[in-house]
Amino acid sequence: ADVKKIAIIAGDGIGPEVVAEAEKVLKRTEELFGYQFETEHALFGGIAIDEKGTPLPQETLEVCQSADAVLLGAVGGPKWDNNSKELRPETGLLGIRKALGLFSNIRPAFIFDCLKEASTLKPEVLEGTDLIVVRELTGGIYFGEKFRRETANGQEAVDTCAYNVTEIERIARQAFEIAQTRRKKLASVDKANVLETSRLWRETVNRIAVDYPDVELEHVLVDNCAMQLLRRPSSFDVIVTENMFGDILSDEAAMLTGSIGMLASASLGEGSFGLYEPVHGSAPDIAGQGISNPIATILSVALMFRLTFGYHEAADSIERAVKEVLDAGHRTGDIAVDKSQAIGTLAMGQLIVDAM
Amino acid sequence: ADVKKIAIIAGDGIGPEVVAEAEKVLKRTEELFGYQFETEHALFGGIAIDEKGTPLPQETLEVCQSADAVLLGAVGGPKWDNNSKELRPETGLLGIRKALGLFSNIRPAFIFDCLKEASTLKPEVLEGTDLIVVRELTGGIYFGEKFRRETANGQEAVDTCAYNVTEIERIARQAFEIAQTRRKKLASVDKANVLETSRLWRETVNRIAVDYPDVELEHVLVDNCAMQLLRRPSSFDVIVTENMFGDILSDEAAMLTGSIGMLASASLGEGSFGLYEPVHGSAPDIAGQGISNPIATILSVALMFRLTFGYHEAADSIERAVKEVLDAGHRTGDIAVDKSQAIGTLAMGQLIVDAM
Ligand SMILES: CC(C)[C@H](C(=O)O)[C@@H](O)C(=O)O
Ligand SMILES: CC(C)[C@H](C(=O)O)[C@@H](O)C(=O)O
Repeated sequence: ADVKKIAIIAGDGIGPEVVAEAEKVLKRTEELFGYQFETEHALFGGIAIDEKGTPLPQETLEVCQSADAVLLGAVGGPKWDNNSKELRPETGLLGIRKALGLFSNIRPAFIFDCLKEASTLKPEVLEGTDLIVVRELTGGIYFGEKFRRETANGQEAVDTCAYNVTEIERIARQAFEIAQTRRKKLASVDKANVLETSRLWRETVNRIAVDYPDVELEHVLVDNCAMQLLRRPSSFDVIVTENMFGDILSDEAAMLTGSIGMLASASLGEGSFGLYEPVHGSAPDIAGQGISNPIATILSVALMFRLTFGYHEAADSIERAVKEVLDAGHRTGDIAVDKSQAIGTLAMGQLIVDAM
Repeated sequence: ADVKKIAIIAGDGIGPEVVAEAEKVLKRTEELFGYQFETEHALFGGIAIDEKGTPLPQETLEVCQSADAVLLGAVGGPKWDNNSKELRPETGLLGIRKALGLFSNIRPAFIFDCLKEASTLKPEVLEGTDLIVVRELTGGIYFGEKFRRETANGQEAVDTCAYNVTEIERIARQAFEIAQTRRKKLASVDKANVLETSRLWRETVNRIAVDYPDVELEHVLVDNCAMQLLRRPSSFDVIVTENMFGDILSDEAAMLTGSIGMLASASLGEGSFGLYEPVHGSAPDIAGQGISNPIATILSVALMFRLTFGYHEAADSIERAVKEVLDAGHRTGDIAVDKSQAIGTLAMGQLIVDAM
């Protein structure tokens, strides 16, 4: 039988709670569809710092490398915020992206009908918003040379932002291909009026564009994009951009949907391997209380089924179950209008498993 | 008599129209308050490229350098968008900032009562929003070394982001001082979990903070700030950040107020010298039709009176006049609910002058 290996990284804060519910969904999928999953847990982030002295232990990397996909809960928390760079959860995050070659971060941002009112945007502005931010994830200023030096004006810090044609091409092609499966509109975001990397970005995207004549391409400056996301969010289909701009814009896009607790993301490399995680963070303030919302992590499993395994029927089943449970009025505290009616993490997970 | 010299840069698109109305306000201020202004016009941006072959002619720089303040309309337009770097209006903008030592860009973002409905945010979220973005303007990735080189992966482009302690200190001090005159809250925005420049930024801001014990300081990561601006805009007072982040966040902040056509900005250096301009751009699509909104440029004059000349009474008079005209229901097309009732640039300018 075709057994799929999934590395499970529960991580910190609410990570373990939400991942536990996603694992129940995996089990239920085996029963319902006859698929087979072999899961292996690995330490990562803050807990790995505490137990192994490093955010990304070698054995964790090996577990991921021998898996077909990775499911990640969330990492980080105030406990590790003042650590030195090598002992910070984020350093593990950057390290795992680079080590696994995950050059592309896919962040769908759309509106859940039942959460329309949760956004700070007016419902009529939000109407129809359904976009994907494709963020380059292993290049740019995140991974360029960094150093300090003494100058006549005191210490100076330097970060280097670099992109080569190969890096830009592969992320651009992926974005064009995603756009082809959707509304066929691609917005490439850069700061070509100031940055050399952006000028190379724009040239390369334009050159690649001739291979995708069915996709309508526009170039948007990053400052203008930050505005247009607010003014006309529904007009965007796929947005492709470099690492730092993507970090900012994907968070802005997620927040404006009002559904940030519900959004899943994928980090992909060459081939079908991918790392899947909820967009929300580790929420240390509510960790351990059993009140966190497992839906984004459960939907990350659905995304894994679609993008890595091609299990579309199972993905449909999960997404339909989530919708059904929400339509029936069940809410965790973060999305409940009447907090006194809110259900816990376990109850929400069980309802979704039952509805599959 | 104390004659103040003002360099006037009308620029491109709607720049000349809106600046003309601001000049009427200057004249009216002379009559009402007995001040004396000597204005000198200079070519800059696209029009300077066309007439002088460079976006920032030497004589324009000299006019600015010998002035006490500069009033700028707007620069740029599609006509020059495909020019080589040296022949682009933006290059002039970066050049004038550097040449005049304008290291600080001040961008107030607040809500005009009569424009509450213009925002895409819900009125109850927007309520009480009144913030200032203080953006570092002559450092960072905008001005670092830029180049291309050949690599095994094709051409590579490189941008360098550098900040030294002196640069960070002076902008941080200015932000703290502005916060002291307001609600005494400062959010310093960086990406200290990834960038070395951000780590130096945060260390330096923390060190400076002890001199401003009355100001409450928080550090916000740039991706989180892009979200929080949407979620709780009214909780921000002063935001200080580096050049690239400030470009993105100040545009996001301006747009969320819904009042972008009404917002003024100041670029300041050491001493009282400053360059003042509306936040909106050159709007080439409506240029020459006499329908543009001169209010942001007129309010830029009020900002100049406050920050460069200390003419607070005259600034009050302008701001009160603008409010009175708006309260009386007068609107240019961009802010009119009923477009058929909209008045033109000249009429709006005259109404404000008359109301002073
Ligand atoms: C934690 C941080 C390093 C990370 C990033 O900036 O990439 C996070 O913000 C994200 O978007 O996944
Ligand atoms: C035109 C461009 C170079 C400029 C900038 O990025 O600084 C503009 O966006 C601004 O904010 O004044």
